[in-house]
Amino acid sequence: MKLSLLSGKSIALTPKTSILQALEEEGIYLTSSCGGKGTCGKCKILIKSGSANTRSTLKLTQEEIKKGYALACQSFVESDVLIEIPKESTLTVEGRIATGKSRDLQALLGAIGIEIKPLTERVVLQLPPPSLNDNISDLERLKRELFAKGLGCLRVPFRFLTDLTNAVRKKNWEITLCVIESEGCYEITNVFPGNRKSPRYGVAIDIGTTTLVLYLIDLTEGGLVDVASIYNSQIRFGDDVITRIVYAAEHDALKSLNKTIITDVNIMLSLLRKTHQINIDSIDQVVIAGNPTMTHLFLGLDPSAIREEPYIPTANTFPLSFAGELGIKTNPNTPVYTFPCVASYMGGDIVSGILASRLHKKEELCLFMDIGTNGEIVLGNSEWLVAAACSAGPCFEGSGIKHGMRATEGAIEDVKINPSTLEPEIKVIGENIHPVGICGSGMIDAVAEMFLAGILDQKGKLQREVSERIREGEDGLEFVVYSKDGKEIVLTEPDIENIIRAKAAIYAGLSILLKEVGYTFNDVHRVYIAGGFGKFLDIEKAIILGMLPDMPREKFEFLGNTSITGAYLCTLSRRMREEAEEIAGKMTYLELSVSRAFMDEYVSGLFIPHTNIDAFPSVKKLTKK
Amino acid sequence: MKLSLLSGKSIALTPKTSILQALEEEGIYLTSSCGGKGTCGKCKILIKSGSANTRSTLKLTQEEIKKGYALACQSFVESDVLIEIPKESTLTVEGRIATGKSRDLQALLGAIGIEIKPLTERVVLQLPPPSLNDNISDLERLKRELFAKGLGCLRVPFRFLTDLTNAVRKKNWEITLCVIESEGCYEITNVFPGNRKSPRYGVAIDIGTTTLVLYLIDLTEGGLVDVASIYNSQIRFGDDVITRIVYAAEHDALKSLNKTIITDVNIMLSLLRKTHQINIDSIDQVVIAGNPTMTHLFLGLDPSAIREEPYIPTANTFPLSFAGELGIKTNPNTPVYTFPCVASYMGGDIVSGILASRLHKKEELCLFMDIGTNGEIVLGNSEWLVAAACSAGPCFEGSGIKHGMRATEGAIEDVKINPSTLEPEIKVIGENIHPVGICGSGMIDAVAEMFLAGILDQKGKLQREVSERIREGEDGLEFVVYSKDGKEIVLTEPDIENIIRAKAAIYAGLSILLKEVGYTFNDVHRVYIAGGFGKFLDIEKAIILGMLPDMPREKFEFLGNTSITGAYLCTLSRRMREEAEEIAGKMTYLELSVSRAFMDEYVSGLFIPHTNIDAFPSVKKLTKK
Repeated sequence: MKLSLLSGKSIALTPKTSILQALEEEGIYLTSSCGGKGTCGKCKILIKSGSANTRSTLKLTQEEIKKGYALACQSFVESDVLIEIPKESTLTVEGRIATGKSRDLQALLGAIGIEIKPLTERVVLQLPPPSLNDNISDLERLKRELFAKGLGCLRVPFRFLTDLTNAVRKKNWEITLCVIESEGCYEITNVFPGNRKSPRYGVAIDIGTTTLVLYLIDLTEGGLVDVASIYNSQIRFGDDVITRIVYAAEHDALKSLNKTIITDVNIMLSLLRKTHQINIDSIDQVVIAGNPTMTHLFLGLDPSAIREEPYIPTANTFPLSFAGELGIKTNPNTPVYTFPCVASYMGGDIVSGILASRLHKKEELCLFMDIGTNGEIVLGNSEWLVAAACSAGPCFEGSGIKHGMRATEGAIEDVKINPSTLEPEIKVIGENIHPVGICGSGMIDAVAEMFLAGILDQKGKLQREVSERIREGEDGLEFVVYSKDGKEIVLTEPDIENIIRAKAAIYAGLSILLKEVGYTFNDVHRVYIAGGFGKFLDIEKAIILGMLPDMPREKFEFLGNTSITGAYLCTLSRRMREEAEEIAGKMTYLELSVSRAFMDEYVSGLFIPHTNIDAFPSVKKLTKK
Repeated sequence: MKLSLLSGKSIALTPKTSILQALEEEGIYLTSSCGGKGTCGKCKILIKSGSANTRSTLKLTQEEIKKGYALACQSFVESDVLIEIPKESTLTVEGRIATGKSRDLQALLGAIGIEIKPLTERVVLQLPPPSLNDNISDLERLKRELFAKGLGCLRVPFRFLTDLTNAVRKKNWEITLCVIESEGCYEITNVFPGNRKSPRYGVAIDIGTTTLVLYLIDLTEGGLVDVASIYNSQIRFGDDVITRIVYAAEHDALKSLNKTIITDVNIMLSLLRKTHQINIDSIDQVVIAGNPTMTHLFLGLDPSAIREEPYIPTANTFPLSFAGELGIKTNPNTPVYTFPCVASYMGGDIVSGILASRLHKKEELCLFMDIGTNGEIVLGNSEWLVAAACSAGPCFEGSGIKHGMRATEGAIEDVKINPSTLEPEIKVIGENIHPVGICGSGMIDAVAEMFLAGILDQKGKLQREVSERIREGEDGLEFVVYSKDGKEIVLTEPDIENIIRAKAAIYAGLSILLKEVGYTFNDVHRVYIAGGFGKFLDIEKAIILGMLPDMPREKFEFLGNTSITGAYLCTLSRRMREEAEEIAGKMTYLELSVSRAFMDEYVSGLFIPHTNIDAFPSVKKLTKK
């Protein structure tokens, strides 16, 4: 049978392949945050003609079903079918948005004073052609030349030899070598004929429990070329790291979980390679940063001991691996550098985050928090670092929120509610764009503003009588944040409960970590906030919500996704790689999950802003108004 | 359809699979020296019932065809078929024969003064189990323990991590590590749960152009467990290295040639593993020695530049490779050490041969010759080594000789002809065994004795009138060496021509190499003769034939297959590996093939013993009698 797209493309498929799979096999990727389970409702397509067997329509409204919408992951063709893929269902790269990020990152390079010196190098050599009088082997000729250039300590892995003989002869004994510095030695990874000094790219990947972000980086100039992000398809095995470890163990599914994440990476890589027409041989290195479980699953290592006392990972520092052995679809000899982890629940993403925040270089006491699925916190300065995790959950990344989404084009990132009319005013990521969902910063804004406006009470319950925007929806009461031309974006009561649980966990983590080492919020000189919220997090709103402590506003600094920023820095600088390894070596991890004080503090935080309103004097003042 | 064996086994197969292939897939291996082309006639089977379509019967006699014999490589079933596999067609391991070899090798170890210290080591560790107070990762725990044991410089390849977490937990934190010393560092290759100190085996392989020999070695005691040998199936792509290089280039068949040789190795390995019930995880290391082309083809490296002026190999020294990346069917992490080569036509087999001969430790001038397909010669002492090759051809290994075979059980290895009756008296390898063919030493004996007895003239022509054993055969005149109960072994005139060409090339090589460096046979203190002739080469007969110079007999020493002996030594001793690398570094290669003097000397050698009979005074005296 045939699946045709409005764009004109058509694909042959059988009734056993879901439309989502068939599209993926053709390199057309849809957004999905449930890994194809039919529960996120994000891979909507519009069936224009023909018939498809649809397993589940749970996430579609009656009206959508009537119009012909279906979920691609739940639909199987029964005849030739013509479909339209709505913009919000399409997985895209950032394109224009990345330009702004690129400027910020270049500024950061300047501020840190980084000289661009990527982990890998390309060395162009003109070898003297052999003769009967100079008839040493190709490898010895190459080594002689490199030795003359001062590259004395050199490791040549066996697999490198395979291409050597043809490469040296193809362009008259001119070759380009790819090398990586590792443990004080150079290791040759690849050889290409002729001068292939550029283009050359690096790939930095933040492997989050909920979201994966991939940066494509120009290794010559240091610029960010583009960004792709995708929900971690492992979500179909569980929302958090624990359920995934359990799934892997109980279903003997380590390989499936590994394959899932590698496929996600390959989808992003393929999207970017296609968009920017990049050859696989131009990708010289991959840097990954992730929490320990994600790092294990990405590398195919068994994470089962992470979950059981005494919580031991296979490794915290990882030897260099190669794209080929991991299944990443680029040149198989491309080296993959993995950020070091600290402990079973303190990973390379946080090491990378500290690197990006520069906390490890500060003299004063600073606090770093990464608001991702796990919610990690680091306290310290240039002398010492202590860290803890507080399981915030994935809601700020859009998962578990009806219209939640990542901070990409089309996301509502800013919400203001007029105190008199109670009408919301929104800001969307991208220019002249209709909103398609709401991202973390938008949620925090919305809940804080709804609370201030009296739409919500302290416990997070919607006050039906105060606004016509509050109505009974499929999941209970909901607040219509946006509605235009039939397109609606709502926040439901269960959404709001999720958000409150997440913010309570974060605040409890911050309080208890400080207490454990004998400090209070007053001793903290600066608070660095990381997380995939997009460009902007409104600190004021986060304090009103009770997620952040009520401290002088100027002490807060929002840094965005620092895991990917640190991976970016490391991609471009060997000095940054050394610093990352120092950070990991220096960090001490404290286990909060067993702490009674943490649980007490968490329960107290299940109010807006907090059971103890006196801890939030500025919010108290505001609500009194 | 079904193929049944007299042994009771039966195999399902289609008419498209040759009986040879079908048997191989079941792990039943037949001998074959033509790689399945139907031209060697060695894979004879007897069809007892049913019908098979036979492509070629060229190598069978009318009588054999009448009896129901067929070549397994040329036969395809047409119905259910019952076959018998004759003993001489079955590929077997040496078993009993290897016991004698083992004694000799152990004596050699003693004579050289080798302490058994294999390239790899197994280290048993009892790790302290982790606790909440000692919660470093598995890898860090391991490194800490190894560091405490003084194994400071340690390389951990990424692939090693995969099994770590399960291995440490399986037997209560007791593990066995496999490590290899490489470039002054230890590299971890494998980890097994519990104490797996033994059994552990090493595999040494001589990769000859015509024959492959594999030694299975007990790494604990140093004993030779067993031997397997097989014709190199690449023979179907050409008899010598040049034709195979051409074939690889013209048919884009590098992968096929590589796969062929790897399959041969896997067949031998599988045969030995089955016979001795050895688990793949008990094989700790593989050492290979071969000429440069065979080494390249075994490793999957392009040998094309070896053939073209200025004759350049990809490499002469090879980085460690691993069974998994080569396709060798054992634990994929088993390291493979490749003997270093010297030049495009002077390989690791000769370096290994010199190592076994100990020539590189002698003060006096010595000569080493390896009578294989290429025929290499080395002259020198502990100060210097010069080497040359003389393309002898594969006949002494049984290839290109009607009833030729390797020196394994059933081979005629010794022939005497009664000068009065002209009746031959033979000696066969193995106890109480009927001969099934004739090996190199038997050929040399037979031709020399036939010459002395007047059965052959100086040019190698059979004198029909002198013996009833000379008759007209399918390939012209032939001499019946053995005949009993319908089993006949003959030497044909084309066989004899082949033998004379081979001996002429060897003698010419020896003479010219000495001349090139300004010496004569009189200056040579000792002549080491290597080659797969079996236990014994009759020097006297080889001089009568004109293959060896007419020197005092006590100067000659026959060493057998030194390539495999050197590989054996290297398997058991790191000092031997160092010596091998020193030998390769010290050896100078001279190119004889372009030498006019060599061609002249070769042509003069196409007589028995030589055109210049004065160079062979003892033979001259003998023939005068």
